[in-house]
Amino acid sequence: MTTIQTVSVGLGERSYDIRVGPGLIENAGDEIKPLIRGSKVFVITDSTVSGYWLDPLTRSLGAAGIAVTTIAVAPGESSKSFADFEHVCSRMLEDGVDRRTAVIALGGGVVGDLAGYCAASVMRGLDFIQIPTTLLAQVDSSVGGKTGINTPQGKNLVGAFHQPRLVLADTGTLDTLPKREVLAGYAEVVKYGLIRDAAFFEWLEQHGAGVIAGDEAARISAIVESCKAKATVVAADEREAGLRELLNFGHTFGHALEAAAGFDGTLLHGEAVSVGMIQALELSRRLGLCAGQDTERARAHLGAMGLMARVADIPGAARWSAEELLASMRRDKKAHDGTIRFVLARGIGEAFTSDDVAPDIVRSMLEEDLSAAASV
Amino acid sequence: MTTIQTVSVGLGERSYDIRVGPGLIENAGDEIKPLIRGSKVFVITDSTVSGYWLDPLTRSLGAAGIAVTTIAVAPGESSKSFADFEHVCSRMLEDGVDRRTAVIALGGGVVGDLAGYCAASVMRGLDFIQIPTTLLAQVDSSVGGKTGINTPQGKNLVGAFHQPRLVLADTGTLDTLPKREVLAGYAEVVKYGLIRDAAFFEWLEQHGAGVIAGDEAARISAIVESCKAKATVVAADEREAGLRELLNFGHTFGHALEAAAGFDGTLLHGEAVSVGMIQALELSRRLGLCAGQDTERARAHLGAMGLMARVADIPGAARWSAEELLASMRRDKKAHDGTIRFVLARGIGEAFTSDDVAPDIVRSMLEEDLSAAASV
Repeated sequence: MTTIQTVSVGLGERSYDIRVGPGLIENAGDEIKPLIRGSKVFVITDSTVSGYWLDPLTRSLGAAGIAVTTIAVAPGESSKSFADFEHVCSRMLEDGVDRRTAVIALGGGVVGDLAGYCAASVMRGLDFIQIPTTLLAQVDSSVGGKTGINTPQGKNLVGAFHQPRLVLADTGTLDTLPKREVLAGYAEVVKYGLIRDAAFFEWLEQHGAGVIAGDEAARISAIVESCKAKATVVAADEREAGLRELLNFGHTFGHALEAAAGFDGTLLHGEAVSVGMIQALELSRRLGLCAGQDTERARAHLGAMGLMARVADIPGAARWSAEELLASMRRDKKAHDGTIRFVLARGIGEAFTSDDVAPDIVRSMLEEDLSAAASV
Repeated sequence: MTTIQTVSVGLGERSYDIRVGPGLIENAGDEIKPLIRGSKVFVITDSTVSGYWLDPLTRSLGAAGIAVTTIAVAPGESSKSFADFEHVCSRMLEDGVDRRTAVIALGGGVVGDLAGYCAASVMRGLDFIQIPTTLLAQVDSSVGGKTGINTPQGKNLVGAFHQPRLVLADTGTLDTLPKREVLAGYAEVVKYGLIRDAAFFEWLEQHGAGVIAGDEAARISAIVESCKAKATVVAADEREAGLRELLNFGHTFGHALEAAAGFDGTLLHGEAVSVGMIQALELSRRLGLCAGQDTERARAHLGAMGLMARVADIPGAARWSAEELLASMRRDKKAHDGTIRFVLARGIGEAFTSDDVAPDIVRSMLEEDLSAAASV
């Protein structure tokens, strides 16, 4: 296990480690045992992930003397619901949870967000461990303590901040992931370069193809750098008062694109973020903040990796309207009193937030994007 | 407003004031306005309390330029449910909540716990203000940040810690409360004397009748002293690692009695706590920890005020079994691995926690209590 790397998230008494590398699930019992107070865990997973990783995890926990109860939800975003929240909490309470019981999330972002919210809520907070099995979850949702569910009004509108005690990012899980899922996660990796670290973006231009193709050293480096970037921001701003908002780069546009696409699988979150980041850079260019060559450089890299980098790339976009996308952005959690908060950039690696972007300039950019989509 | 008193709860950046006295609801707009970030609030209340206090509250908030949306739930414990949690969260999201919106709980403990949990959860945490309208809520549930709902497995098993920004304990609300409700709240007042403050208990022996009958100065003093006691404990131990457990004095027994009574209104929480505190003192006496005269003194005061102080006082107790009560105690949140945590006392004002009470001595005490009930 010499290749395992560790990123520490400094949050005082709630600090925790992110362990990155191969074989972590097979060794989870030894990793987890010293951190939990009792000898009982609930593993929350979904029926796809469980087929690959539940057996090795359960074996490892059992070998360490930890009793496991598994609760599996359906794969996909629809499990982040009030109904599943009640179901999982109730199952834990029926099966004899106590305050020393820990909750382990084994899966992607959906499982992590749902399990984390249940862990935050049952008995007002149980120890929580993330075992993210997608690249997106390894570099994003499993770090930072955000948990929650969706409602008809939007994603993640009900939830809690609940930091994990440990994150095990087993790079072996990425080998069982469809390439499209790897790519979607890679968009969030690129985001860390674009917001604060031009040198990391440059490294990705050289090694991104290896990250996606399965080069283990490149994957570990990309995950470690991404987690470090997120950990730095989260440690400085745990509850999203300011700096943490930079992590929403590409997300104001991205969430609106996802909502328009209808969360039906035609547009993955990371794909929406990929397009949204280019829109944020293009908006920054139109505002005279950022050179056009930076937008083009980012678009070129995302496109070369195989990610969508234009609204016109999204199936069905020709049917959307700029007003619909703007209305959706105004409903974003970061908006207030109808003002949309944008994360803009002065160049690659130089993101900042702004509350005073004129809606007209956004509308005209969106109209151009959509007319390009219509003519595809 | 010269009679208003203030208790400060010291929790670092989450510190807040409890304001105690008459007329606070009529003046709520001025009290609240400087503390909230936006100009919109949701008032969560129940259909009984709203008849008395919603109009004056809404008028005062409106006069301060605060827009009010009201959500009323049914009165009673049944509203602390997953269904009501979803209903209230959804109503807020439908009605245009944003991160600067505040949530005001206007009502007793049920409304405060439900509204607080919704405030903790919507957008992962909104500003929250408690306006408790029962003595129980003024001295207990509105202080300390515990929020939550009930499940078929027990009370308050799903929830969050979410501190309010302000508590307005308007003593005028107690004049509209049935005497039985005032008495039930008074049991929690007595608890603060019994656990840490023998002088306060002695003061209550002299002034308790006035507190219950409606003497305003006595009520304010009793509420202020109770809030100070709870604030001291909460500030030292926000998330219930140790000291805070003393606040559960009488509650391990009390919760079991409530569960046996079936939460149908035959036994109020405060009534159960009253009997439970005497059981805790009696258990301490049987363990040789506490003088019998302390148990008798506490029983005499609670009885003189009109509170239940014996299991035999509870309607239906003759049908209960000691095993049933013990099993219920083992399911308590504070229990783990089947071991019940008791809060015992070395005398009035000297409570402490203990994990190593032999079940047999508890069982035989309960059997005596229940046989006394059977012979009533």
